[in-house]
Formats: sequence, C-alpha cells, structure tokens
Amino acid sequence: MSYERENIAKMAGYVPGEQPEDADVVKLNTNENPYPPPRAVMQALAGVTADQLRRYPNPTARKFREAAAKVHGVKPDEIIAVNGGDELLRLVVSTFVDPHQVVGYADPSYSLYPVLAAAQDAKVFRIPLDDDWHLPADYVEQLNRVGAKLAFVVNPHAPSGRLTPVNDLRRIAEGFAAGVLVIDEAYVDFVDPARKHDAVQLVRDGLDNVILLRSLSKGYSLAGLRFGYGIGSAKLIKPMLTKTKDSYNTDAISQALAVAAVTHKDQAAETWAAVREQRDRLCGELRGMGLEVAESQSNFILVTISGRSLDAQKTYEELKRRKILVRYFSVDPRLADKLRITVGSTVENDVLLRAIKELV
Amino acid sequence: MSYERENIAKMAGYVPGEQPEDADVVKLNTNENPYPPPRAVMQALAGVTADQLRRYPNPTARKFREAAAKVHGVKPDEIIAVNGGDELLRLVVSTFVDPHQVVGYADPSYSLYPVLAAAQDAKVFRIPLDDDWHLPADYVEQLNRVGAKLAFVVNPHAPSGRLTPVNDLRRIAEGFAAGVLVIDEAYVDFVDPARKHDAVQLVRDGLDNVILLRSLSKGYSLAGLRFGYGIGSAKLIKPMLTKTKDSYNTDAISQALAVAAVTHKDQAAETWAAVREQRDRLCGELRGMGLEVAESQSNFILVTISGRSLDAQKTYEELKRRKILVRYFSVDPRLADKLRITVGSTVENDVLLRAIKELV
Repeated sequence: MSYERENIAKMAGYVPGEQPEDADVVKLNTNENPYPPPRAVMQALAGVTADQLRRYPNPTARKFREAAAKVHGVKPDEIIAVNGGDELLRLVVSTFVDPHQVVGYADPSYSLYPVLAAAQDAKVFRIPLDDDWHLPADYVEQLNRVGAKLAFVVNPHAPSGRLTPVNDLRRIAEGFAAGVLVIDEAYVDFVDPARKHDAVQLVRDGLDNVILLRSLSKGYSLAGLRFGYGIGSAKLIKPMLTKTKDSYNTDAISQALAVAAVTHKDQAAETWAAVREQRDRLCGELRGMGLEVAESQSNFILVTISGRSLDAQKTYEELKRRKILVRYFSVDPRLADKLRITVGSTVENDVLLRAIKELV
Repeated sequence: MSYERENIAKMAGYVPGEQPEDADVVKLNTNENPYPPPRAVMQALAGVTADQLRRYPNPTARKFREAAAKVHGVKPDEIIAVNGGDELLRLVVSTFVDPHQVVGYADPSYSLYPVLAAAQDAKVFRIPLDDDWHLPADYVEQLNRVGAKLAFVVNPHAPSGRLTPVNDLRRIAEGFAAGVLVIDEAYVDFVDPARKHDAVQLVRDGLDNVILLRSLSKGYSLAGLRFGYGIGSAKLIKPMLTKTKDSYNTDAISQALAVAAVTHKDQAAETWAAVREQRDRLCGELRGMGLEVAESQSNFILVTISGRSLDAQKTYEELKRRKILVRYFSVDPRLADKLRITVGSTVENDVLLRAIKELV
C-alpha cells in the first residue's frame, strides 16, 4: 500500500538547477554570486570551536536577529532567521494557509511556489504578468476576488529582473487586507542604490500583513550556507518563530557566519557594485548583437533569442556542450524563446559573450 | 485581524531546554555529549572553502547518503539527510498524515510530537507506558483501533532510557499495517554493544512502513550542527526527499562534516564507551544513596527523588542555584517526582553527585 498523503502522491517536486561537479563549467544557471563571501565570514568560520558544535545552538538565532534588526532599523521580534529562504516560503504557507485555501502569485515566477502550495494541499491562483513583466494593475483585485490568503511577489522579479517600486507594493499590501503579502527579495541586494529602493519601510510603517524574504545566498555569496531571514510585523513573525519552524532550525556555524555577514555588509556590497557593472556590460554587449534583454535590477538577465540561426533551446544546448550552463525554462510558453543568464565574473562573461557571438 | 491558521493560533509551541550562555554552568539538562566531536569532523571544518560556501550545496546530500548507506548496509535511496532530527519528525507528519488523522505515541515521550501534530492540524493519541516504562503489550491494537496513520516510538526511550528489543519493534511494525512506524533512535549510539541492538535490520528485511531516525547531535557531539538522517524503505524516503523537504535542506558545511563523522564512527564510539562507563558510575552511586534510577541504555538517567528531605522540583531548583542544570518535567504527573540527568564528564558527574549527596 501507499502511505503518502493523496496530495503528496499527486504533486511533482521542485527541480533545482543543475549543480555540476565539474570545476571547468562556466556556471551561469543558478544565480550564484561570482565573487567570494565577505572576508569577515571566512574569519568567523576559522573561529568556530568544537564546543560550539557540541552544544545546541540558540533556538532562534538571537544574536543574528539582533544584528539584522540593527541593519534594517526594525526590532529583533520583527526578524526570523531561516535555513535558506525556501524555509521561510514553506513557513508562510504552512502557518497562514489552510488546506484548500488559495495562494496567489504572478506568473511566471519562482517554480517553488506551486510546489509548496501543493504540499500544503492548498490551491494556487496564477496572475499573468503584463507583456513587459509588470504586475497587472488589478493584481490586488484579482487576489481579493479569489479570496487568496497569501500572495507572493518576487522583487526584483525572476526571471526578468524587473523591479516593482515600493509604492506599488504598498498599494498591494494595503488593498490585500485579508491576506499576507510575501515579498521575496532574494535578489534585492543587486538593485542600483540610486533607486533608493527600501521595502523594509513597509514594515517600519506598521503594515502588519507584509513579510519580506532576504537571503544570504546571492548577495553574500553564501548559497552553500543556507541562511536567510524574514522581516515582518511581530504578529506575523511570532507564530513562525515559536510554533511552526523546527525547534533549532539554524545551526551554530551558520548563525556565527550570518552575524559576520550582515555586520560586514560593506564587504558584500563591493560584490554588488561589481555585479552591477558586469550586468551593464552584458546587457550592452548583447543588445549590441541585436538581442533583446529585459531591464534587470538583479544578478541575472533574461535574453530573448528569436529570429536567429539558433533558437533559445538550441542555444542553451550548444552553450552546455561548450561547458557554459545557463537556464532554459522549457515548460513556460512565454519563456520558450528566452534564456536566463546569471551575471558572472569578468572572465566568465567574456567566455559567455564570445560563445553567444559565435552561435546566434 | 489575525492571519494565523486556527490550529496554529490555538496550539502551544515546543519549549527547548534551557541553553545558558554562562560557561560556568554544569549543563546536564539537554543530553549533549560531554566529549568533543570526532577529530575528523574538526579537520573537515578546517577544509571548508569559500567556493563551497558560494555555491549551492548538493540538494540531497548525496555523498553523505552514500557514506551512511555504507555504514548501515542499506542503499543511498533508503537514506534522507535532514537539518537535525526534528526536521525528519516534521517531514513524516507532513508527508504521511492528513489534517484530522491520528498520530499515536507512547506517553511520556518527546514533547515535540504533539506540537508537530498540532501544526499539521492532526489528532494525537497517547498510549500510556507501563509502570516500568515498557510499551504496553497491546500497543499495536490500540494504534489500529483509533486508525492511527503514524506512530512514534523513541528507542531508547526518553526520559527513562529503557531499550525496546528489535523483535518487539518488528511485531509492532508488522501489526501496524495501515500506518508508518517512526523509531526515534536519537540516543541509540549509547546502547551497550553487548546487546547487539540493530533496528536497521527491519529496513534491510524489507519492512516498508518503518523509518528510523538517527541524529549526529548526541552520538557525534554535534548538536550545534543540526544534522540527522532517516533510514527507511525507498518508498517512504522518496516523497520526503523529492517533494516535502526544503529544496536544499542541509548546507555544504554540515554535509562535509557529517560525511567525516559517519566515516570516522570509531572516533565517536570512543565517547560512547566513556559515556556508558560514567552512566554505570552515576547509577551505582545514586542507587548507593538509596535513590531509584531507571535502567538506562541512553546518555541520561531518570532518577526518582521521593521520601527525602527535598522533593524533585526543589532538588532541581537547588541544583540550579548551584549552577547545575538538570531537567524537571513539571507538567507530567508520572514524572513529578523525577529528574532527568544527562551523563556528563567525570568532573561534571563529580560535581553533580556531591551536590545531590548534600541536598537529598
């Protein structure tokens, strides 16, 4: 007999991007930061003791929450530390959405959202983005019409890189009174500082139905560490912190390294500037080849390959044959002629640009 | 308005044991191993590179699963790596138990079980243990009568330390055909090797409704690392591995350290022998003081304090005043006259024994 719950048996799991073990591969498929983690993080790693490993960690990563609260100008009770941003995405679904209730999100976006909804036996409601990847003007009305309990907005959007301004998010949060708005800011560190984008202001302003997701994976070059955090009203954070998260969800090493990371944000910010510079260069050169590239505020770009000698899928395959990995989303018709390419180091981008020039 | 699900709003969270930051405290309350982690683990820690942190880890901890499979004589597909044993306990509930279905367990046992059931909006069915902490003879019949979908057995039992033989577990698994039997072996490393206890044999024998939980927290002195694993039929492991666990649930550092740990089990086994020796000594000396101590195969002992100058709660408080932390379970009437005391190092046990001699 089968022991799985029916919804679990029926659902498909999330498929992570390819993680080749071949060190030769130019890996531009999973949006890792091409530069190393902050020096302070490596120093914290060298300072981890046997006794820190032997004993249980602080169950809520208290020191990290205090450090992050200081960085963002909020209270420690408005922060939850998580074992990678994906944990927070699971927690918001399992804490705020009953089975058979509705989770809404813009389409396309992170393919994990429907997986988490299916595991909770919840329904999903997909709201197609406008042609240029804007949220539709009636996003809130659509959410309210179906009685959504939770909505996700990735900002900057993936896979396009488009940034929704804070005031638009504020209008969504205010209009979505019956539900929780989760703003997935996994890539927000790469936004041009000239934009003065700061969605934490929504929490500081007391909007009690907003949770922001932050991750150390990209901005702090720590995808291997699995550490992220949520920022939101204490009312939303508390049930996750005290009831639904695993009792010791983050470990002693990652807590120590995460404190070092956010305390030395300036060191990570050096990589953000370098990524932005390379992003501008990639966009410029690809557009110079006549390719369409969406305006990106993230560490990846979405490139349209159409009317060329190779289509997007063939280009993906040919790049892979040359040991250059990018992301191709085969199932989504709106993405069928596009490639999502992580902004790599100068050398990696050199290799990529040369290959694309030859291929398409 | 409140955004929490009703079952979450109503439930109480798990309360972890006290984790004082005062280094002077003799900490015998949360069953940490008093000896350091294996040397090989500290060597692996020193070998962690910036690039391992920068990139995503293997999503299923493949190398660890291969190493653990070799140690236990099972296949890698019969192993799931988890971010601390508590993650596996959550996963079995969320994967195999629908809301309103029943989770059964012996009472008293790990106070996290009802918390996980409540978060899933499942019901719990508590089966009182016999007076000497044996599972009642009709354990399976009781589970089947209420239609339980999942049952937990902690073995060795906590907080008594009693070991249930493998053949008794086999009879339970065979009789519990409609549900999944989770055998929580968090403390199994401390069982006397003369007992030749090996519950993995149930999985090797093809019993497809059994999952064993193993943890590196106690046996490998790695409570701070948050790393555990499940052993079970591929049929039970697969949905958790590919659908319900977070996409990258264990990080690159913990995977590397966990491989080192299980590959150098012999180094950890030195601490198991030392703990057993100290356990025998503690039991002997406390019984010599006329105190009743349950027969323990774990790294803690359950001591009855009754008919003495101080009762159990007062003894707990007086010990705490002397900076010796032990565990007192105030809510359970069967445990009201008892203390659970972790087996510490020789010096810690000296301090404890001297204090108890003076107090009770």
